Amino acid sequence: MTLADAALLDRNDPLAPCRERFSLPENALYLDGNSLGALPRAVPARMAQMVAEEWGRDLITSWNVHDWIDLPRRTGDKLAPLIGAEPGSVIVADSTSVNLFKLLAVALEKRPERRVILTERGNFPTDLYIAEGVARFTSCDVVAGDPNQVDERTAVVLVTEVNYRTGARHDMAALTRRAHAAGALTLWDLCHSAGAVPVDLAAAGADFAVGCGYKFLNGGPGAPAFAYVAPRHQDGLRQPLQGWLGHAAPFEFSPDYRPGKGVDALRAGTPPILSMAALDAALDAFAGVDMAAVKRKADALFDLFADEIGRRAPELEILTPRDAAQRGSQISLRHPEAYAVMQALIARGVIGDFRQPDIIRLGLTPLYLRYQDVYRAAEVLGDVIATRAWDRPEFKRRAKVV
Amino acid sequence: MTLADAALLDRNDPLAPCRERFSLPENALYLDGNSLGALPRAVPARMAQMVAEEWGRDLITSWNVHDWIDLPRRTGDKLAPLIGAEPGSVIVADSTSVNLFKLLAVALEKRPERRVILTERGNFPTDLYIAEGVARFTSCDVVAGDPNQVDERTAVVLVTEVNYRTGARHDMAALTRRAHAAGALTLWDLCHSAGAVPVDLAAAGADFAVGCGYKFLNGGPGAPAFAYVAPRHQDGLRQPLQGWLGHAAPFEFSPDYRPGKGVDALRAGTPPILSMAALDAALDAFAGVDMAAVKRKADALFDLFADEIGRRAPELEILTPRDAAQRGSQISLRHPEAYAVMQALIARGVIGDFRQPDIIRLGLTPLYLRYQDVYRAAEVLGDVIATRAWDRPEFKRRAKVV
Repeated sequence: MTLADAALLDRNDPLAPCRERFSLPENALYLDGNSLGALPRAVPARMAQMVAEEWGRDLITSWNVHDWIDLPRRTGDKLAPLIGAEPGSVIVADSTSVNLFKLLAVALEKRPERRVILTERGNFPTDLYIAEGVARFTSCDVVAGDPNQVDERTAVVLVTEVNYRTGARHDMAALTRRAHAAGALTLWDLCHSAGAVPVDLAAAGADFAVGCGYKFLNGGPGAPAFAYVAPRHQDGLRQPLQGWLGHAAPFEFSPDYRPGKGVDALRAGTPPILSMAALDAALDAFAGVDMAAVKRKADALFDLFADEIGRRAPELEILTPRDAAQRGSQISLRHPEAYAVMQALIARGVIGDFRQPDIIRLGLTPLYLRYQDVYRAAEVLGDVIATRAWDRPEFKRRAKVV
Repeated sequence: MTLADAALLDRNDPLAPCRERFSLPENALYLDGNSLGALPRAVPARMAQMVAEEWGRDLITSWNVHDWIDLPRRTGDKLAPLIGAEPGSVIVADSTSVNLFKLLAVALEKRPERRVILTERGNFPTDLYIAEGVARFTSCDVVAGDPNQVDERTAVVLVTEVNYRTGARHDMAALTRRAHAAGALTLWDLCHSAGAVPVDLAAAGADFAVGCGYKFLNGGPGAPAFAYVAPRHQDGLRQPLQGWLGHAAPFEFSPDYRPGKGVDALRAGTPPILSMAALDAALDAFAGVDMAAVKRKADALFDLFADEIGRRAPELEILTPRDAAQRGSQISLRHPEAYAVMQALIARGVIGDFRQPDIIRLGLTPLYLRYQDVYRAAEVLGDVIATRAWDRPEFKRRAKVV
């Protein structure tokens, strides 16, 4: 494989035109869309319009005239096809952490005789922390072990579909079947799945799901998260963060809470409309995009990178499963000085990130990443390893955010 | 009083220059800054820069290079002087509802032998709903009665300082003293206080407080909210929504939660950076502003409006206390057809809002509202009442958001 071969793959890439939908940094190869997605070109104009017209000019009337009040539902419905969710079953609200709290509480209330939240030790920390927070509050237990070991004490299985460190992917349908067979519910964290791989919550029979808006969905830094509830669980939904906008009729200002219909009951306070509008506009970058085609290209990018690294820096262990069905849309490599290696990459314009303790993590985002970008990133990484370019004190000084 | 007299007051108004800090709608008198504050002029450029440069160009590196990670603290410290909070005791995060949940849980944990949340029946609904949500979770009780009736069962008194309907203001210091004398803690909702009236949490000895960013603070629709914890309560703070950014070292990605220092422990998930940046920029509109001067002007605007309405439409009952010390920064009037009256006002370019069941609510925002604006608003309201201009079917059809 040469750079020219990679460029030829780009010319024949059916997703190549999608790159025009993004505003990308010059002089950098961005392989960190799994941390913060790139800026969709439609967003700046939408934000300027939001700020100047909807906020500045139309002010309070915008809740009606621009229908801000239903934006969490509208954005949820726009997002739903990307995760195989039924229309009306997704709401955009709060953060992944806060939505995890709500849905764990819902799940526990639906299985009152069961007191265990079953999750994985390797789950993303916020999933573990929030589960503990719910547990302290409800005197139930968190078992962080093997999510397959579901039993009659398990109320809910909380699993992140694609692991943030390794990129390994669970079989959602199989794990959901196993949980249901044992009488438990499932709550899927889709932070590294939504917009990355084809997800089919409905087909898998998933009960609940959450995910963030700022990674593969490109909704901007700290974009609001989403929450999914299967239609069969939507009637009479109650959750502890029952804020006023989750009320069936918020503008009655009744002193008594009455939950809104379906996923509206997951709303808490007034949502950050500017950030939500950015996510809403960003999702248009997926218009007409087939997630199966996205996954095919991600797999081709993965193979290209893995082959090049295998040739150029065979000492780097690839942690991400080689079987395409068993992974998300990233490639994680192990190196004892992974932090310094990542800093050396960044110094050469290849942006990815480091994850504890020894992982170089690179996100594969087929909408805006080209074969030639991935080829060049492999070339730079190969060179950084071969020349030990990472072995400099300034690359070893840790920043606040790594 | 004539319009010319009002214009003279504007010429002598020391706060008049502040109006230039806002971008205001043409052909409208905006008396709804207590629902959604007007757009500060600094915000559009800041948002454009955030989107294009911090997100679009600098991408993931912005967490360090633009210090996004500490934005919740920085914005909290900028806000602190407006509410008499000690430096480092305010964090900007989530919504008012979500922050109420966290701090009620904290207060209950600090008074484990007491099982009552005492609040007012007339409190803003989200305060009541969230208190009920916490209560269902923790098997404690919510008593919605008289917040002065604190006793040995009361763990925490939850009061909104300025009532959203009437504008009546509690005596924070007196109520806090009474609560403390009975061994209870206080949680103050400052949604209609922050940026509206001088607040001195430290002097009042308040324990906890929350408030929203989108009313008198002008932070934009659904701007993130804030949470205050008195320094004496900050050590070892634990709250159930213990998301990853509330961890003492989030980027260690430890499976075990260890709360961050002080109010950092109130952080949950990744915050909506775009919305938070808008609030941060908006707060600069308060630079050099003395809240006592703001209150003086608000009181003068109130008196002007009350006098004009007393003359022009004496049948309108003014619900808001006439004693300046006992009110916030709004004027609420009662009319059996308040909804239709408000629609008639809006049709004539006077923007306020309606509150159940019969309240016309007008916000007084001295930074951008002139004496002549308030004079003209009174003139229009007087005329709408005198001519029964509100008595048209199209003014009685309720919108989704009222």
